[in-house]
Amino acid sequence: MESVAILGTGLLGTSVGLALRAAGFQGVIIGWNRNRAHAEKARGMGALDRVADDAMTAARDAQVVLISVPIYATLDLMEQLSPVLGPEHLVTDLGSTKGQITDAADRLFNTPERAGFLPGHPMAGKERGGADLADADLFRGTVWLFTDFPAWPRSEKATALARSWREWVVSIGARGIDLEPKRHDELVAWVSHLPQLTATAMSALLQDRVGDAPELKDVGGRALREMTRLGASPFSMWRDIALTNTEAIDAALQALEQHIAHIRENLRTPELREEFEKANRFRKTGDERTGRPGE
Amino acid sequence: MESVAILGTGLLGTSVGLALRAAGFQGVIIGWNRNRAHAEKARGMGALDRVADDAMTAARDAQVVLISVPIYATLDLMEQLSPVLGPEHLVTDLGSTKGQITDAADRLFNTPERAGFLPGHPMAGKERGGADLADADLFRGTVWLFTDFPAWPRSEKATALARSWREWVVSIGARGIDLEPKRHDELVAWVSHLPQLTATAMSALLQDRVGDAPELKDVGGRALREMTRLGASPFSMWRDIALTNTEAIDAALQALEQHIAHIRENLRTPELREEFEKANRFRKTGDERTGRPGE
Repeated sequence: MESVAILGTGLLGTSVGLALRAAGFQGVIIGWNRNRAHAEKARGMGALDRVADDAMTAARDAQVVLISVPIYATLDLMEQLSPVLGPEHLVTDLGSTKGQITDAADRLFNTPERAGFLPGHPMAGKERGGADLADADLFRGTVWLFTDFPAWPRSEKATALARSWREWVVSIGARGIDLEPKRHDELVAWVSHLPQLTATAMSALLQDRVGDAPELKDVGGRALREMTRLGASPFSMWRDIALTNTEAIDAALQALEQHIAHIRENLRTPELREEFEKANRFRKTGDERTGRPGE
Repeated sequence: MESVAILGTGLLGTSVGLALRAAGFQGVIIGWNRNRAHAEKARGMGALDRVADDAMTAARDAQVVLISVPIYATLDLMEQLSPVLGPEHLVTDLGSTKGQITDAADRLFNTPERAGFLPGHPMAGKERGGADLADADLFRGTVWLFTDFPAWPRSEKATALARSWREWVVSIGARGIDLEPKRHDELVAWVSHLPQLTATAMSALLQDRVGDAPELKDVGGRALREMTRLGASPFSMWRDIALTNTEAIDAALQALEQHIAHIRENLRTPELREEFEKANRFRKTGDERTGRPGE
């Protein structure tokens, strides 16, 4: 891999640029953003060598094209890139749901005559976006999910570039894991979309109920800050996730409603102990796993 | 204030001892714990000067008696201390709900012939207890709630000790705030008990649904860790809270169930944007308030 185009220079795109540089990538990094000023900012930070005038030009000039925009914008770019790129290119992405993107990859890419497409999803981010918050270490110690299909008849060049991209993912500190797209979307509904939407619900509820209470600003401690931190996440990032993983998210949220109701109905019964013990087990396994108790 | 007895040398009691010392308290600190070995540990850490054989002896030897045990144990100790102590003592506590404790303070203390009782509740803690985790800085930047009644006819000595205790609370880094007991219990239901029980529900649910999934250990990121951190909290600490603030907790949990259901039913409608915007407002105010965005 000697050249990369980063289409979308928000938090993730810019962080990938910085991380590749920090890991010793010597090739050229071309950037493009719908708002050119944001791409210039990423260049100023050292994430890019140059800024392209349009996405197709940037893509044509690079071996690996990284799409780092929201999901529907990713699907749009995939439609535009498919006829423009050939088998000497690999396209990859950072979309948070993988069902529709993997379907589009199958339909628009991954034949011997076309560019390859490797669907990816780094489990990293912050509750706010933008190049300002980009960080070369954002992916260190995290997992980068792929929903690749071994049966895709990719060109040799695209196959080699996919291998190379996976190696760079490791170089910037992440671990690649392969999942089926449907399993991916179910799993992230539980471990990512459920926590986000619960934090949004709790923050919105507290804004309704105690947003005006002058005492609130004095009383909320670390527990409250943590459980509502993700309340700061922008709708623009989550709209597409809600629209492209509706069924799995619906099931996870409904299960949580039922679980909270179960706890509520057992505030005065011994069943409450069992819920705490089950929760303790979940955290215990997690703490042993990550070696980060209390985080 | 020249002598303090700390009854209960867990995380909070031990932290108060360490914090008083760090803030320059020169008097004697006597400690007692049901399990004496834990009190000896707190002494070894420098939180106590000596360990007493029983709680009543410790209390009689001190001007200020700090009860730092769970709520029902606090109520038991209040019953035992009331006939033993006189108007030259002040008793105070750290209980997380204040309705029943303030009622007991009214019934058992706070006459000219009896010890004074100042109901207190520091908004500080960790998701795990024990002297091991004690920290002289635990209260720095936090709020210490009181549900004091100005009309209580306390002895002069107890009144002076209550003033002195409030000053020491400030010296160890906290800010004292006075609230009505009922308002206190409602408010902490929203900003403390709701976050805790939601984290317990989410952790228990995830233990049920994906606790055995091998991929889970790879996929969960910071969002999941944060939203379930409080899942590690022990039932022993929360049982008494659930039993002594049932009504307010029930109302808060039910409101959250409804709010999550509302979001679930609107995953594909513009209403979802409004929920995110309301959540953003809650966090924005919070971030501006604390000067700790992203925490």
